[in-house]
Amino acid sequence: MKLASLKNNSRDGQLVVVSRDLTKAVAVAHIAGTMQHALDHWSVVAPQLAEVYNGLNHGTVQGEFSFEQSACESPLPRAYQWADGSAYVNHVELVRRARNSEMPPSFWTDPLMYQGGSDDFIGPRDAIEVVSEDYGIDFEGEVAVITGDVAMASTPEQARQQIRLVMLVNDVSLRGLIPNELAKGFGFFQSKPASAFSPVAVTPDELAADWQDAKLHLPLLSHLNGELFGKPNAGVDMTFDFGQLVAHAAKTRNLGAGAIIGSGTVSNKQGTDFGTSISEGGVGYSCIAEVRMIETIRDGKPSTSFMKFGDTIRLEVLDAQGHSVFGAIDQQVVQYTAR
Amino acid sequence: MKLASLKNNSRDGQLVVVSRDLTKAVAVAHIAGTMQHALDHWSVVAPQLAEVYNGLNHGTVQGEFSFEQSACESPLPRAYQWADGSAYVNHVELVRRARNSEMPPSFWTDPLMYQGGSDDFIGPRDAIEVVSEDYGIDFEGEVAVITGDVAMASTPEQARQQIRLVMLVNDVSLRGLIPNELAKGFGFFQSKPASAFSPVAVTPDELAADWQDAKLHLPLLSHLNGELFGKPNAGVDMTFDFGQLVAHAAKTRNLGAGAIIGSGTVSNKQGTDFGTSISEGGVGYSCIAEVRMIETIRDGKPSTSFMKFGDTIRLEVLDAQGHSVFGAIDQQVVQYTAR
Repeated sequence: MKLASLKNNSRDGQLVVVSRDLTKAVAVAHIAGTMQHALDHWSVVAPQLAEVYNGLNHGTVQGEFSFEQSACESPLPRAYQWADGSAYVNHVELVRRARNSEMPPSFWTDPLMYQGGSDDFIGPRDAIEVVSEDYGIDFEGEVAVITGDVAMASTPEQARQQIRLVMLVNDVSLRGLIPNELAKGFGFFQSKPASAFSPVAVTPDELAADWQDAKLHLPLLSHLNGELFGKPNAGVDMTFDFGQLVAHAAKTRNLGAGAIIGSGTVSNKQGTDFGTSISEGGVGYSCIAEVRMIETIRDGKPSTSFMKFGDTIRLEVLDAQGHSVFGAIDQQVVQYTAR
Repeated sequence: MKLASLKNNSRDGQLVVVSRDLTKAVAVAHIAGTMQHALDHWSVVAPQLAEVYNGLNHGTVQGEFSFEQSACESPLPRAYQWADGSAYVNHVELVRRARNSEMPPSFWTDPLMYQGGSDDFIGPRDAIEVVSEDYGIDFEGEVAVITGDVAMASTPEQARQQIRLVMLVNDVSLRGLIPNELAKGFGFFQSKPASAFSPVAVTPDELAADWQDAKLHLPLLSHLNGELFGKPNAGVDMTFDFGQLVAHAAKTRNLGAGAIIGSGTVSNKQGTDFGTSISEGGVGYSCIAEVRMIETIRDGKPSTSFMKFGDTIRLEVLDAQGHSVFGAIDQQVVQYTAR
């Protein structure tokens, strides 16, 4: 099934069930008022929501209305846990190569993961507000899952069973602030502002054959200022599947229902390291930093700029029939002004 | 006023108002069922809670009952944000000295802060469950605040106005896992399992003269296995006050109501770097790692072990009259077994 949270001037939004084709929705306050409530009581609530979903797709529910992606919060407008992996190790290797540093071999077996802030996500069509362009504003196109309760020290197989929903994420990054933050050794902190998630979160069973081995096997399309910028397949070159990532997050602690675990920037190895942009016949990139690394390795310095105020980024996944699976994240970068 | 969350088999506990002397409590479901609800609607709810608090202290409320600290969850059993600073820079300097590395001068002006997990805090009297003693189990005694909504790019002065509640925290740390995690450059992640907070959270006004300049001016008492291990004053050598720490957390993003910001391990500079334990007349330490650093600097290697299964840690703050302000965190380390 497909679920979303509509903006309603509350902190957690209004849970709705969305039709498969993303054209219709229906409120389900009698089952669960919010996404977090649904996740907290999933075993009871999910079958009831699935029944509504079935009815909505067959035109047999009462109270359906037109679904507008622009009316959405992120599926969880705020969450108790957001941890982001770096499962496309190719991306990490490029970062290292661009700065002439060796990548430890352990990176192929021990996932990188950072703890993100989760108290104030922005909606999929909300502006990305940043104080200064000097912060080096970048998008990162990723896939993420929402889990149920995951016990400490769960195996990857156990963790896979706790994946409730799949969605997309724009893990906005401030590249100009990363070097100072990482130099302090405490993680990305100020360089990772609020993330945005796709309008719709989807259960793994709904993804059918596009969800295998706890990976999403579809291209992630990134359009920067309306131009196709990347289309790497999220199921290719993903070194750690979501079961492994969730288990990594739960190694020393329990995860509560509603925990969000991200894949890291989707990135495919390409036939050549040089000339891999869309215009050159490659699959392109899911963040600007990656093309800048390619440029640095090739030309000695980057030529593509980070995002400026007014720039837009659209992230979307289409199925084999060309239908949008999660709806589109579509955001404009704007200057933050104190209110 | 003083607030707590009692265990009630729900994920968020039951909000209660607690008397100043921590002997009595009263449920306030008619005002706010949970701590998060109170924080989400603070301007409306706080005056009503304050009225109950006043009545409770004067014996004029209905439905009061005996308050048991052991019945408590952490004040927020789960939270949308937990970020922990390292405001006692002396502690950081010792860490560096023990491993013969220079501390960048910027550490005195630019706070260190890491993002913590907040989806599954443990209660103040709950066992600290760890898979293996080899993880290097340590406590860290700290002060923390809970904020209201904090706008991005708030000044420290603006941030100070958003401090709603003050409490203690045991920021449990797995020292054996820290080197590998920090070497990966993405932060502490697996080396910071679930934290525990004091039974009671207290408004700054209630702390009166003990809360000045957004710092708690009282000693933090740590008892390890029943023996006094540390009594450094939380108001001394705190390089960054809570206004500065909250503003640091909000530099590139809004903080949502209920965000928890920690001070880092409380640590005082002492007359001499050597011989500063309680038995030697010093103020001692708020974590085992710090005495091990002193031992390393003095003897070339540490002699105090990290915590073993069965060990206990008690963290408490007493006012000038010897009364417990926040109640006591009192926990035993036990081996985790999958359930």
